[in-house]
Amino acid sequence: MRIIESIADMKKFRLKLPEPVGFVPTMGYLHEGHLALVRHAKSENKSVVVSIFVNPTQFGPQEDFGKYPRDPQRDLAMLETVKTDAVFMPPVEEMYPPGYDTWVELGKITHRLEGAARPTHFRGVTTVVTKLFNIVQPNRAYFGQKDAQQALVLTKMARELNMDDLEVITLPTVREPDGLAMSSRNIYLSPAERKGATVLYQSLRLAEQLYQNGERDARKVHQQMLDLIQKEPLAQVDYISIANAETLDELDTIKLPALVSLVVKFGRTRLLDNIVLR
Amino acid sequence: MRIIESIADMKKFRLKLPEPVGFVPTMGYLHEGHLALVRHAKSENKSVVVSIFVNPTQFGPQEDFGKYPRDPQRDLAMLETVKTDAVFMPPVEEMYPPGYDTWVELGKITHRLEGAARPTHFRGVTTVVTKLFNIVQPNRAYFGQKDAQQALVLTKMARELNMDDLEVITLPTVREPDGLAMSSRNIYLSPAERKGATVLYQSLRLAEQLYQNGERDARKVHQQMLDLIQKEPLAQVDYISIANAETLDELDTIKLPALVSLVVKFGRTRLLDNIVLR
Repeated sequence: MRIIESIADMKKFRLKLPEPVGFVPTMGYLHEGHLALVRHAKSENKSVVVSIFVNPTQFGPQEDFGKYPRDPQRDLAMLETVKTDAVFMPPVEEMYPPGYDTWVELGKITHRLEGAARPTHFRGVTTVVTKLFNIVQPNRAYFGQKDAQQALVLTKMARELNMDDLEVITLPTVREPDGLAMSSRNIYLSPAERKGATVLYQSLRLAEQLYQNGERDARKVHQQMLDLIQKEPLAQVDYISIANAETLDELDTIKLPALVSLVVKFGRTRLLDNIVLR
Repeated sequence: MRIIESIADMKKFRLKLPEPVGFVPTMGYLHEGHLALVRHAKSENKSVVVSIFVNPTQFGPQEDFGKYPRDPQRDLAMLETVKTDAVFMPPVEEMYPPGYDTWVELGKITHRLEGAARPTHFRGVTTVVTKLFNIVQPNRAYFGQKDAQQALVLTKMARELNMDDLEVITLPTVREPDGLAMSSRNIYLSPAERKGATVLYQSLRLAEQLYQNGERDARKVHQQMLDLIQKEPLAQVDYISIANAETLDELDTIKLPALVSLVVKFGRTRLLDNIVLR
């Protein structure tokens, strides 16, 4: 496994990699969800590149960039076990040299959900991913469904900027045995919060069940999800959304495919989860 | 010479082109300035692709998109004479399908000069050029120095988005015998305006001469340029700028390299020109 820190070295090494090349961009502090992406990438490509880069431009000024969890040694050991070919881990100044001022930005779809709560977040994501795509030049790139809006945004971006040689692939959310979606931020949870955090997936399963039982009124589903979560005293609902799964327009009447997504805070930790009704 | 209208066909044809591939993006209504770019591209690449696309997103709502001059038959005949290999001329809906909403945008450098007068102009330029670069995948792309700010913006964009396999090349402005910079918009000028329009280059030459004679005070140079232009009754100065040639920061004291640029209106026609003091 080759560890690469400079853009020039990554470009040079890329030319030697057997194709097709799969790519899994990450912010490190890896968990089983990331490894599932790498394993899948490895199963359908001759080579796999993983990037580890905590991208400052996708954090707001009040957010946790400085204290986002980092453990590169552990990450590298984990990536070795899944036969990663190269790990690209550039320093911040390599990606954003002084005076850097070029941005990739999507409109409406990035102003909803996570974009409403974090106004500059997606601009940071789309910019860094465009740069990483140009550096790594993958044939396929893999993202997790846990960040549903991010996956939608990046799929739309790649299509609209005509990155047609690149396939953006979204893989299912990997969960703990009790249903909690895997996330690097789960580390922040106290034992009591960790226990209460199962309420996210429970509320999503409830929404699915209500739909299967014939409920089409989004407000009623929303209310029942809210009632369930509010039984958990440590949970503070940030938002619950039932939206068109492509445009992210909020729905009054549930039509498929619909994205049911939510953010619940435990203390200062924001947890995301979602399911798609198909 | 192959004429291509769809993105898919362009991508397919690109794979067959001998490399390196040079690329000259244009909005059509070609003149000798464009042909100089194509000839130069042909001299240093095995293949040359020219695009003709009047890009709606770089025109403001009050601007001349609808009546921008178009003459594709004449353009194609001219491109044939300089041995162009392929002409990519997509319809607007091919480049911007319904719901299109992905934008490439630069900050500070695009808010000056042309960007101050035309606030969404450069966003349109950087977006369409990113798309064209992804579609045509050139090894070298050629732009004219006449649009000095555009050339700077695109050079910075390509570098900062890590389009490192692509060299952005800026070639000198081509001028009429009396010094007027060639431009598709010159067609709008009445005979009297056309005659008066030589004042742009005259004022630039004056700035150069003043600098060579030891003048370093930008305000004084600015004033003498203005005095010269105001002797031409049909000319209305939009702006005169003496700026750092890389950052476009306005200068009080002239230091090299400096970009001296101006926009002068004749009736409703805005004419641009510039020189770089080195």
